[in-house]
This record gives sequence, C-alpha cells and structure tokens, in this order.
Amino acid sequence: MNTNVVGVDMGGTKILAAVVSEEGNILSTAKIPTQAKDDTSIVIDRIADCIREAFQKSGVDANSIQAIGIGAPGPLDPETGVVIFAPNLGWKDVPLKTELEARIDIPAFVDNDVNVGTLGEHTFGAGQNVQNLVGIFVGTGIGGGIIMNGELFHGASKTAGEIGHIIVKADGPKCGCGTRGCLEALASRTAMAKQFQKAILKKKKKSILTELTDGDLEVIRSGTLAKALRSKDKLTLKVFKDVTKYLGVGIGSIVNFLNPEMIVLGGGVVEALDDTFIDDIRKSSKKYALPDTLKGVQIVKAELGDNAGVLGAAALARQRLRAG
Amino acid sequence: MNTNVVGVDMGGTKILAAVVSEEGNILSTAKIPTQAKDDTSIVIDRIADCIREAFQKSGVDANSIQAIGIGAPGPLDPETGVVIFAPNLGWKDVPLKTELEARIDIPAFVDNDVNVGTLGEHTFGAGQNVQNLVGIFVGTGIGGGIIMNGELFHGASKTAGEIGHIIVKADGPKCGCGTRGCLEALASRTAMAKQFQKAILKKKKKSILTELTDGDLEVIRSGTLAKALRSKDKLTLKVFKDVTKYLGVGIGSIVNFLNPEMIVLGGGVVEALDDTFIDDIRKSSKKYALPDTLKGVQIVKAELGDNAGVLGAAALARQRLRAG
Repeated sequence: MNTNVVGVDMGGTKILAAVVSEEGNILSTAKIPTQAKDDTSIVIDRIADCIREAFQKSGVDANSIQAIGIGAPGPLDPETGVVIFAPNLGWKDVPLKTELEARIDIPAFVDNDVNVGTLGEHTFGAGQNVQNLVGIFVGTGIGGGIIMNGELFHGASKTAGEIGHIIVKADGPKCGCGTRGCLEALASRTAMAKQFQKAILKKKKKSILTELTDGDLEVIRSGTLAKALRSKDKLTLKVFKDVTKYLGVGIGSIVNFLNPEMIVLGGGVVEALDDTFIDDIRKSSKKYALPDTLKGVQIVKAELGDNAGVLGAAALARQRLRAG
Repeated sequence: MNTNVVGVDMGGTKILAAVVSEEGNILSTAKIPTQAKDDTSIVIDRIADCIREAFQKSGVDANSIQAIGIGAPGPLDPETGVVIFAPNLGWKDVPLKTELEARIDIPAFVDNDVNVGTLGEHTFGAGQNVQNLVGIFVGTGIGGGIIMNGELFHGASKTAGEIGHIIVKADGPKCGCGTRGCLEALASRTAMAKQFQKAILKKKKKSILTELTDGDLEVIRSGTLAKALRSKDKLTLKVFKDVTKYLGVGIGSIVNFLNPEMIVLGGGVVEALDDTFIDDIRKSSKKYALPDTLKGVQIVKAELGDNAGVLGAAALARQRLRAG
C-alpha cells in the first residue's frame, strides 16, 4: 500500500492542509481561516477539521495516512510539539502536538514554519540533491532553517536558523529583537517599509509607491514592490540596492562561516520578484564571501512557492516518523 | 597492545611533534625550527625527522604508531592532504600527505591548524562532552573550526570555519581579505595594533605600550597586551572594550544562526589574558544573541594551551583512521 501523510501550514490568517503521497504529490488540499482571536482549543479544532476535510477530499484509505506534519509560527519545541510563543496567533505554551493527537489519532510532528519551509525545499524542491543547505526566507521578517547531513538542525537551544538576526552592521538600524544591525533590520519588507516612509513622508521624495499604496506605506506588499521595480521607480531601485547589498553581506558571512552546499532563497519578497533579484544577490554575495568559499556553494531560488508550507510539513512528518 | 599516534603542529617558525596515547597523554615531544625559506622537500624532510625524534624519545613499539596527524596552515584540502596556499611557509600546492607518507610509511592525515585546534579541544579539552561546537582562535588573525555531530565540518568548498571573515560591521575597517568589517578587521591582534598605532603615533595618545614595545607598535605580542591591561592602561582598556564588543557581535551572530552547544575561545590573545576577558566576551555576546538562543550554549576558554596543536593533530589522526 502507498503511504500518505498530511502536511499542515498553520498561519496567522489561514490553515492549509494537504494529503501528500510518498513522491511529494499533493492529492488534495483544504483551507480554513485561522480566526486566531478564538480560544486556542477552538483554533486547534479548526486545524483538525481542516485535516479531516483534506483527507476526505483525497479519497485515500484512512490507514494509508501515517502521520501529520505541522509548520507553525515559532519559537516552539520540535520535540514536545509545544508552541512556546506565537504573537500572531496570541499563543503561549500551547501543546499543539498532544492536543492534535487527542483529536486525530495519528502521530503529529510540529516544527517552526521556516524550518519546515527549508525541509520542504530539501525534500521536494531546489535542494533535493544536497546534504547541507541553508534556507533564507525574506518577507515581513527574515527567517531561515539549516539542513545538516540531510536533516533539520535545531541547535542547543532549538533556535538554530535565526538568519534574520545575524548582525551584519553593528550599531546599524534598530531591530525588533532589541539589538541593532540585524539582517532583518536591513533587508526585510518591514525594513524596506521604514525606508520608504522616511524617504516619501519625511524627505518628500517622489515614488510610484505613493500611488500604488494609496499613500498607506505602513505595510507594503511584495507584489507592490515588484510593480514598483518593474516600473523602474528610482526610490525603489535605491532601497533594493541596499537590500541586495545586505543580503549579500549576510550570505557572505554564512558562506565564510558554514560553507553549505546551497543557499535557498524564498519568502514573499523573493517569490514576487523576477530572477534578476536572485542574480543581484548572487553578485552581492560574491563581494562579501572569501574568494574560494563560494566555489561549491549554489545560491538558488526556492521552487515550491505557495505549496512550500504543506509540502515541507509532509516532509517533516515522514522524516520524524523514520527517525522514530 | 596500546595504540599511539603522532601529532604534528606545523608552524611558520617551528615544527612540533608528539607521540600521543589513546587517552591523550603526551608520551614524548620533539621540536625543530621550520626554516621555511628552504626548499619544500627539505622542510618536509625536517617534519619527518621531527616525527622520528619524537618516536625515538617515546620508547614505544614502532608497530603501536598507527597514524600521523598534521595541523598545517591552510587553505588546504583535508582529503588529499595538499596545502593549497600557505603564505608564511611560502607553499603553494604542496602534497604534504603523500610526501610525508613517502618518507615515513604510516598513514598521514592533514588538516588546517585551526580546525585541528578545534578538534583537539573537542577530543581532549574544553569540549569533550558536546557534539556541536565552534572554536574561535584570536591571534594575529581570527580563525576557527566547526564540530558537527562530533566531527570536523569542512563544508562544500572545504573552507568552513572562517570565523574571522564573518562580517560584523558592513562598511567597517578594511580587512586583509579585501572586504570591510570582518571580525578579523575589528578584533584580531593585527586590528588592535592598527588602533594603537593610530592613537599613539597619529593622535599622540599616551599609553604604557609605548614603553612596553620600545615604540615598535608594528606587532604587539599578546603578553604585552596582557601587561598593559593589568596596569589598567587607559588606551588599552578602550581598545579592548571594542574588541570585546565585536567578538560579542560575532558570537551573537553564530549563536543566533547555528546555535552550537559550545563556543571555545582560544589563541594567543585569549591564552595571555586572565579569565575576565572571557567573562567580558560572555556579557557582550549576551547583548547580541536573541534572548533564548544562549540558553544551551556554553562560552568557555580553550584548555589545551601550547599542546593544542599536537593533541589536536593526534585527535585528527585517530578520527580519520576510524573513518577509514
């Protein structure tokens, strides 16, 4: 019998579930709004409902479902499956794994969403043929994951992969974490929004973004950034020059330090832009990595797109099941 | 029969060899000046002589010597044992492993001196009980090594562990590697010497270092720095405040990114100073690491001192022999 797993992508606004075959084929999907304001147990009921819906749609034999994998916002404990703190869900110390196993009698495995995204790329996406890779996801923040010897590396405090908090410019701009000069404070969408606000609202610089955002520069979507770049908006080009520079500095440091076989770049910003963004990051990384360190290192774009979450979670379920 | 190995510490000025037991006991040592200006084959003859001398002094059975481990200046290829480039030896593409095996009929294994130092600490020193650690050696430059799952991690281009070239301050001071703001350009003895030269020679600042160095501020020994710190020399304290800061930034980035169980600090500068230096680096790292990431991470001083090279090389010989 073919075995299947369910992969769950647990986000602040929606829950996605998919039944995934051994080969990584998505047999069915289901989607439910998270409505994170509700009581935790109601939200977990919703995850269970979403999983059941995906399963029913798939038409596969119930016995073929061997495990459930869940990518959830972290920090969390991947062993106990407890979500320690998830501001966008309003969760603190939620035993997601055991609560879900109480609702659906199948082993459930939980990991941080960016770790799961990285594992997905390793198992089904851009990183299928390498054993050591680093995933970097550029969106509202900058997250990441590390695969060592083919498996997620969690580190001593289970916090490995906080790539957004590699400090690339000591004494640089303030970061949400309280320090200064983290990669996230220089190259995330939030960092970009701050740059745009400063330039447009304070320095009265002209930009197509004023029109594209209807003047609301608080949160700028990745798609809007892509539009502004395509129209060669001067200010946007300038901000991206810096973003590309600092991503290169961060990747240069990673390559000099860990020298992984591959760096996979994903996340909202990377997905929305065309491949010249990856080319520019590659060029920038070359400036900051030591001459020979980049020889064996591929810098590539993530391949799974919107399916990264559920496919990564499916990969997690299988890997953890194998590990026992 | 007890088995032994020979560990060789191959430096720019001297060659050290030691016969080392399974338990890490040094049974004998030998030392020969490198005289690196001589022809490469003569220098390798000298390494062989040094190994034979250590062996003869030890009085152990020739058959008990199972392998030779050598820590040499890198970059080098740990698989083929070819030293790719070693400026302080004047070597380029020297097949050290095969040349040595041609002289002494025992398997020889070569790795980079800082990798070997890190492995030594893992096997016989501060890091005996951890599986994932990062060694940071602060001297003329800043070097390092990474142990993952109990073994040296070399990375895709075999250059992993270039901790001195983690960029901590983009657009910062120029580094020997051609980039700006590398940790080495901010916290190595060379970086400190530049600071002292600038302050004393250009800005005419007073410092006990003028007296301690007889005015020659080109190369300042670690022992001299220790003396200046003990006498609470204002300028030296100021320079060390920055050094401690930037080491904290670098370690913070490593802890956020890789989250190893342990960071071992060694090298000339660390060896020469008392433990308050380590305390200060710990405090500084805490400022730059994310709140929970340091929970499981020990930051400790290297324990092997002058023997780090030969003991690490002995550990290398055993590990590579086991790996086959």
